[in-house]
Amino acid sequence: MIKVSVVGAKGRMGGNVVNAVNDASDTELALALDAGDDLTRITPDNTDVAVEFTVPSVSLGNVLTLIGQGVDVVVGTTGWTDEKLDQVRAALAQAPRPNQSVFIAPNFAISAVLTDHFAGLAAKYFESAEVVEMHHPDKVDAPSGTAIHTAHTIADARKAAGLAPVPDATETDGGSRGQTVDGIHVHAVRLRGLNAHEEVLLGNPGEQLVIRSDCFDRGSFMPGVLLAVRKVSAHPGVTIGLNNLLDL
Amino acid sequence: MIKVSVVGAKGRMGGNVVNAVNDASDTELALALDAGDDLTRITPDNTDVAVEFTVPSVSLGNVLTLIGQGVDVVVGTTGWTDEKLDQVRAALAQAPRPNQSVFIAPNFAISAVLTDHFAGLAAKYFESAEVVEMHHPDKVDAPSGTAIHTAHTIADARKAAGLAPVPDATETDGGSRGQTVDGIHVHAVRLRGLNAHEEVLLGNPGEQLVIRSDCFDRGSFMPGVLLAVRKVSAHPGVTIGLNNLLDL
Amino acid sequence: MIKVSVVGAKGRMGGNVVNAVNDASDTELALALDAGDDLTRITPDNTDVAVEFTVPSVSLGNVLTLIGQGVDVVVGTTGWTDEKLDQVRAALAQAPRPNQSVFIAPNFAISAVLTDHFAGLAAKYFESAEVVEMHHPDKVDAPSGTAIHTAHTIADARKAAGLAPVPDATETDGGSRGQTVDGIHVHAVRLRGLNAHEEVLLGNPGEQLVIRSDCFDRGSFMPGVLLAVRKVSAHPGVTIGLNNLLDL
Amino acid sequence: MIKVSVVGAKGRMGGNVVNAVNDASDTELALALDAGDDLTRITPDNTDVAVEFTVPSVSLGNVLTLIGQGVDVVVGTTGWTDEKLDQVRAALAQAPRPNQSVFIAPNFAISAVLTDHFAGLAAKYFESAEVVEMHHPDKVDAPSGTAIHTAHTIADARKAAGLAPVPDATETDGGSRGQTVDGIHVHAVRLRGLNAHEEVLLGNPGEQLVIRSDCFDRGSFMPGVLLAVRKVSAHPGVTIGLNNLLDL
Repeated sequence: MIKVSVVGAKGRMGGNVVNAVNDASDTELALALDAGDDLTRITPDNTDVAVEFTVPSVSLGNVLTLIGQGVDVVVGTTGWTDEKLDQVRAALAQAPRPNQSVFIAPNFAISAVLTDHFAGLAAKYFESAEVVEMHHPDKVDAPSGTAIHTAHTIADARKAAGLAPVPDATETDGGSRGQTVDGIHVHAVRLRGLNAHEEVLLGNPGEQLVIRSDCFDRGSFMPGVLLAVRKVSAHPGVTIGLNNLLDL
Repeated sequence: MIKVSVVGAKGRMGGNVVNAVNDASDTELALALDAGDDLTRITPDNTDVAVEFTVPSVSLGNVLTLIGQGVDVVVGTTGWTDEKLDQVRAALAQAPRPNQSVFIAPNFAISAVLTDHFAGLAAKYFESAEVVEMHHPDKVDAPSGTAIHTAHTIADARKAAGLAPVPDATETDGGSRGQTVDGIHVHAVRLRGLNAHEEVLLGNPGEQLVIRSDCFDRGSFMPGVLLAVRKVSAHPGVTIGLNNLLDL
Repeated sequence: MIKVSVVGAKGRMGGNVVNAVNDASDTELALALDAGDDLTRITPDNTDVAVEFTVPSVSLGNVLTLIGQGVDVVVGTTGWTDEKLDQVRAALAQAPRPNQSVFIAPNFAISAVLTDHFAGLAAKYFESAEVVEMHHPDKVDAPSGTAIHTAHTIADARKAAGLAPVPDATETDGGSRGQTVDGIHVHAVRLRGLNAHEEVLLGNPGEQLVIRSDCFDRGSFMPGVLLAVRKVSAHPGVTIGLNNLLDL
Repeated sequence: MIKVSVVGAKGRMGGNVVNAVNDASDTELALALDAGDDLTRITPDNTDVAVEFTVPSVSLGNVLTLIGQGVDVVVGTTGWTDEKLDQVRAALAQAPRPNQSVFIAPNFAISAVLTDHFAGLAAKYFESAEVVEMHHPDKVDAPSGTAIHTAHTIADARKAAGLAPVPDATETDGGSRGQTVDGIHVHAVRLRGLNAHEEVLLGNPGEQLVIRSDCFDRGSFMPGVLLAVRKVSAHPGVTIGLNNLLDL
């Protein structure tokens, strides 16, 4: 059994993590802490892995504390800059245990991570590629960070393979062709009822490949969080991105 | 048997019409004419319905001639203005036979016509609505005329029902939200391998309705052309739009 | 403001109805009752419409009581037989108020109701038609009652139009072609992560029409329940099916 | 420039290959032969790669002759048994040139090959998996060989990862759950207008991954045939399956 403590346990994501850890057969909940709680209660005696799901303003401090406590950390909070990551790496260099690990993921949905990964593998075999992301209408940014990442993944693969730009004879358009990210057109749909979805379209003469991720609710992150909990300790140092924990 | 003459028989669409007329059990080909041929060879003796698929620059002249010949006309050529339509109506007022008919359709694909129609019926029951059209990358305009029409259909239905604007909290966007047509966001994908496709997304809390038309090739127009051939004579005067020939 | 009482308020669906009634701007919650509560507390003084979401074994009794109390009733409980409906009609004939109404719906999701309705309108214009329903893997019956209903809707429309059977040259199959309901092939997918989805595919040479309903969660029923609450009183007697309350 | 001869040039697929070879900038047509033509006209002097698209009854003989002529061969004809493949290997062992190559593919559509490959990579990360294939209604077998292959790919990946069987609480079903291939449910849709399509659905709590291949027409095979023409010579001996020529 992997002993898991949750930091941010009263938040929406943290609460889901508590339930997922309780439900899985190979993990058990150690401590469920939230703002105001003393993180130094988390120690190697009671905890193998700490899962941190809070807000960007406090996440770095939490992670540094947890490293100092000698436990491995899985981080779901966003907002990581190169400067913050450097601080994490410095802390790990002086960590109490050898080979301590910190894993950070911008997106824990396995379907989303695989969509991005497969888009990168497939891109060089197709003449055309576009990305359509669809989210609930309360989202304030467009397109999603995941869609921008996928566009870059596709563009990088096309460049490495020496592909010409995607064909597009459009002469007159009032904006319907979307945003061009590194040469790849990205479209953002906002629709009540949806949560977080991404569709990658790849086209050749006579054929199309569609790769689509549907994240229907917050529960979509839990299989990825549990996978990170199980694998983080095998990846000493800082690892970013769930794709690095998958056998692909 | 309905006797059908085809004007523009050597063109891509006209050639398909010739084949469709030959294949259907209730139609038979009368004359297959093209540029340079004498349209006055088409008469009520040999022809019940003439199908005109040419180019905008000659279509009006062809239609006026065919009206004068006393046959009903199904027109697939685009580019009809109010002025041109007025000339057609004037010619019909002096036509040799009573109750002569001219039917004009901007889109003969039944799936596309129904998508537009159903979008209009459904629109008032959903908080959100967006249109995504997808075409081959050689198309020079974006979005498609059909998608613009569908956006107006949706917008009109929403206004008639007194709906509020579609919800959209987007604050930062570089163009990914597409073109707004009468308050409805329209997105245009251009992908090698595709032909002409349109998807209407309608959303409420917890649910989505998707209506999608796929026109894989020019053959997609033939069921609609045959339907028009069978029904045109029952609609004296000028009729525009395949939806007016469907029992909906 | 429409005053709404909820019977079965502690159930999963009933609880959602309580929230939806509280959230909507034109409805207000009167009484929220559950098993053991006295339904005669619901009267025309405090309630315009009672919403009944319980279980088949008690629903008929509840509805008869509510009719006797003189309020209109919206019923979401399933399991209605002709015998039960006859009892409801008999009770309405002796109801204390004139023109009392009972509305019963097997499915309150507007997207699902429209999918079925549009499938019926479109069916006669297409050579092929199939139904694919997709649900969570805990569902014990397959295919869904909604999919069976849609297959019958399509089959009826095809018969009325005199269409030939759907084309199918399959000679060898181990069961992959699914269940044939009234001549229409129906397929049932069971997949973790999904809730309740139905896709109708209609095909002609060169074209396809797809109509799809996605019900992501129980919230998908609430727009339909609210619509029924608003319209039930305009339909005296027993009305079955949300399509009868829509302007289609 | 790669010099390509086509065997079966008057067939539907062969004719498409002739056009594709003429259109590509790095290939040129050498000889276009068909039934009755003398295959020994194909020699290393005029041909780098021969593409064989005929029928199973003559394909083995053609391939053995072409090996004897000292050219590399790309084979699109189906119906290869272990016995036939042994004969090809024996012929290659005595081929006039060292390192001669024969490449055989059951499916040249890159989108279909990638769908199968990605399904195999993703399968172990998802609780549920099903396959839906969709074809034109003139196809005589169901499900498609490609869908059966994909089901095995998924099943193998699940077994290797020690996954439990897919969850399925279905108690009553009249056949809608499709055909079970190695524990994976496979559904076959037959619809006029479609050509050859396959959709793999993978599900976890709260999320879905969809991988879909659309082969709209015979042209969908040409990018794969050209890829094989370019890469066959780098794979001495017999190679089966386009996935082995892709960098995945």
